[in-house]
Amino acid sequence: MITANQALDIILEKVSLTPPEEIKLIDSLNRILAEDVYSDFDIPDFDNSAMDGYALRFEDTDKASGDNPKIFDVIDIVRAGVLPKANLTGNQAIKIMTGAMIPKGADSVVKIEDTKMIDPEGKKIQLSSQLSKGQNIRLAGENIKKGDLVATSGSKINSPLCGVLASLGKSRIKVFRKPKIAILVTGDEVIDIESEYSQGKLYNSNTYTLHSQTISLGAIPIDLGIVSDDYEQLKEKIQQGLEYDLLITSGGVSMGDYDLVKPAFKDLGALIKFHKIAIRPGKPVLFGFCKGKPFFGLPGNPVSSMVGFENFIKPLILKMMGFKGVETTKLVEATLEEDIKTKPGLKFFIRAQTTIKDNQFYTRTTGPQGSAILKSMLLANSFIIIDEDADLVKKGTKVIVKLLD
Amino acid sequence: MITANQALDIILEKVSLTPPEEIKLIDSLNRILAEDVYSDFDIPDFDNSAMDGYALRFEDTDKASGDNPKIFDVIDIVRAGVLPKANLTGNQAIKIMTGAMIPKGADSVVKIEDTKMIDPEGKKIQLSSQLSKGQNIRLAGENIKKGDLVATSGSKINSPLCGVLASLGKSRIKVFRKPKIAILVTGDEVIDIESEYSQGKLYNSNTYTLHSQTISLGAIPIDLGIVSDDYEQLKEKIQQGLEYDLLITSGGVSMGDYDLVKPAFKDLGALIKFHKIAIRPGKPVLFGFCKGKPFFGLPGNPVSSMVGFENFIKPLILKMMGFKGVETTKLVEATLEEDIKTKPGLKFFIRAQTTIKDNQFYTRTTGPQGSAILKSMLLANSFIIIDEDADLVKKGTKVIVKLLD
Repeated sequence: MITANQALDIILEKVSLTPPEEIKLIDSLNRILAEDVYSDFDIPDFDNSAMDGYALRFEDTDKASGDNPKIFDVIDIVRAGVLPKANLTGNQAIKIMTGAMIPKGADSVVKIEDTKMIDPEGKKIQLSSQLSKGQNIRLAGENIKKGDLVATSGSKINSPLCGVLASLGKSRIKVFRKPKIAILVTGDEVIDIESEYSQGKLYNSNTYTLHSQTISLGAIPIDLGIVSDDYEQLKEKIQQGLEYDLLITSGGVSMGDYDLVKPAFKDLGALIKFHKIAIRPGKPVLFGFCKGKPFFGLPGNPVSSMVGFENFIKPLILKMMGFKGVETTKLVEATLEEDIKTKPGLKFFIRAQTTIKDNQFYTRTTGPQGSAILKSMLLANSFIIIDEDADLVKKGTKVIVKLLD
Repeated sequence: MITANQALDIILEKVSLTPPEEIKLIDSLNRILAEDVYSDFDIPDFDNSAMDGYALRFEDTDKASGDNPKIFDVIDIVRAGVLPKANLTGNQAIKIMTGAMIPKGADSVVKIEDTKMIDPEGKKIQLSSQLSKGQNIRLAGENIKKGDLVATSGSKINSPLCGVLASLGKSRIKVFRKPKIAILVTGDEVIDIESEYSQGKLYNSNTYTLHSQTISLGAIPIDLGIVSDDYEQLKEKIQQGLEYDLLITSGGVSMGDYDLVKPAFKDLGALIKFHKIAIRPGKPVLFGFCKGKPFFGLPGNPVSSMVGFENFIKPLILKMMGFKGVETTKLVEATLEEDIKTKPGLKFFIRAQTTIKDNQFYTRTTGPQGSAILKSMLLANSFIIIDEDADLVKKGTKVIVKLLD
């Protein structure tokens, strides 16, 4: 049986990127850039005022103080978005608004609050302190310079990046197409949540978790519904699913007589890369390629399904989408608050609640860990990861924890 | 001038919840539940097998060992989703698939791998070890019990909760309606990113950051575009914006002669609650109510706008949406990796890159902190928060850091 790390290596070995598409910037949140973006101009592209105040020459404020105030003639007013008309010379000031271009001749700005108007028309102001050169001026290019590489292909577009791309005037950008992920649930015991409940059956929950997990990544779930344990119907549905970028099946991959998923894929000419990973929960994970498309066969237990998606499918989808940034799920070290019994040879993913106290992480399980017990997943904000060589991990030990989004 | 904490108290004092609406569960990711959800039945609602194996009576395996194997007659097979027909008595076994109901008479399940078939038709199996009572049986109600409160109003629906609600058969649920957030950018200097660039102007980026920040919360942005510094047009646009749940304006709230936002709101009969907060960046933040709707006037600098949204508008929107969970942005303590100069009397939000090394948080600024410098926001994953009483914070000090999503 292969280890979790070996499985990931196989999954990520040969990944086809989705092709780029051009979209409007306003629709770009959480999409992945498919181009390097350079700035076509300086931002700002002109020296401008950081304050509402008066533009003037700093040399004219030399030795200004309460005892030695300096008087300036206000010769004009310049507002943001309008080119200044007047040029400024000695002992003159031009009233200036935040963001407005610095008039020729001026080299500094004094805040309105630091001046005193000394005539009723606002034509003269008095200044009682000395300025430093360039004070309250934002220089051209101080934000971004012309030709700067502002964002690289593979970056996820978050709110600040969206704003920066707007400030560059990039109204349309290239991003990787969202991959379409087909989700197929199998099993005679599974019924649709719109159906009436009947004993011995289970409502389909895996479509809902896999659908949500897929959307959370920014991919598009395609729900193929539930197929019963009928071999021909299963093969037909699998073929439908192979029309998309990735197919995930849920259930039917254990050792049972009705576990038809692997035979069905084989019958359709699939190349099976592996069908078990040495992990708990969720050991039976089928992965391979069929008709050129990657597919996963996840076990039907709700928690196994979530764990399989989070640890093995998510990295593949992110790579398909061209994502090159740091994954948002983070590994941290935490102090274990209870003993944990595991089994050598298996990597354990244990649902856990991880908290921060006194600048340190602490973690504890969220209760019974049976793979059908989705409730303990509700309380979890993390997985404790216990490696294959462990057996009993004692309270107080430092363990690796994967924080969930 | 009021402090950041006083401002938040005022903002959150009187919040109208958006009304509940019923939606399909499949569309519920990241929505906020507007009802308490109880389970109508046990999950599972019948004892079932955790393995593919044989159901039998544990007492019949007493003292079984390699030297003393026990033989069982396999009298039936039961698959998941089908009610078992046969009852089981002494030294009998029924082949059982994962998830299938435990037949009457059986109390334990042995895994297929731990048995040996001893006739060609699979009618007899041999067992060489003793079972414990209840082994490999998932008990009715072990996941969720009938009548259990599974999720409370105000919870955010994530992937596990979506799965749990599905397993309860809740195909439709009540959630709070997404609030509609109107976004209006003001200023003669601001031009639409579809326009041709011209010197002295700035492309509108605040619509894009505010739009993205709003979507990230699960609310609906309504883009009202850009309005020039024309008093009548501004008032008209503000009135349009007041038709939604919340109006955010950007720009025009400083001390400049063309800062028309506050007068326009006043003219429309607004109750102004405050118009400055003792923070940097982003001090001029206008907040009040007009025609029964809350509104914010944010400053036009891109970073001030983001900081204002993150710290003051986000908590309000989450409360409007009925969110009662723990906010996903977390405060942690980190060691400062450089000196930081602040100004007493102001709370500083400093763009920072926070990392984890040896189970400890470390943080440093992302470069120049001018409020127009959106680029330093790109590199930031956090804000260092420096309180009003500080002045110079030395390298090595423990500081409070707000991690961004």
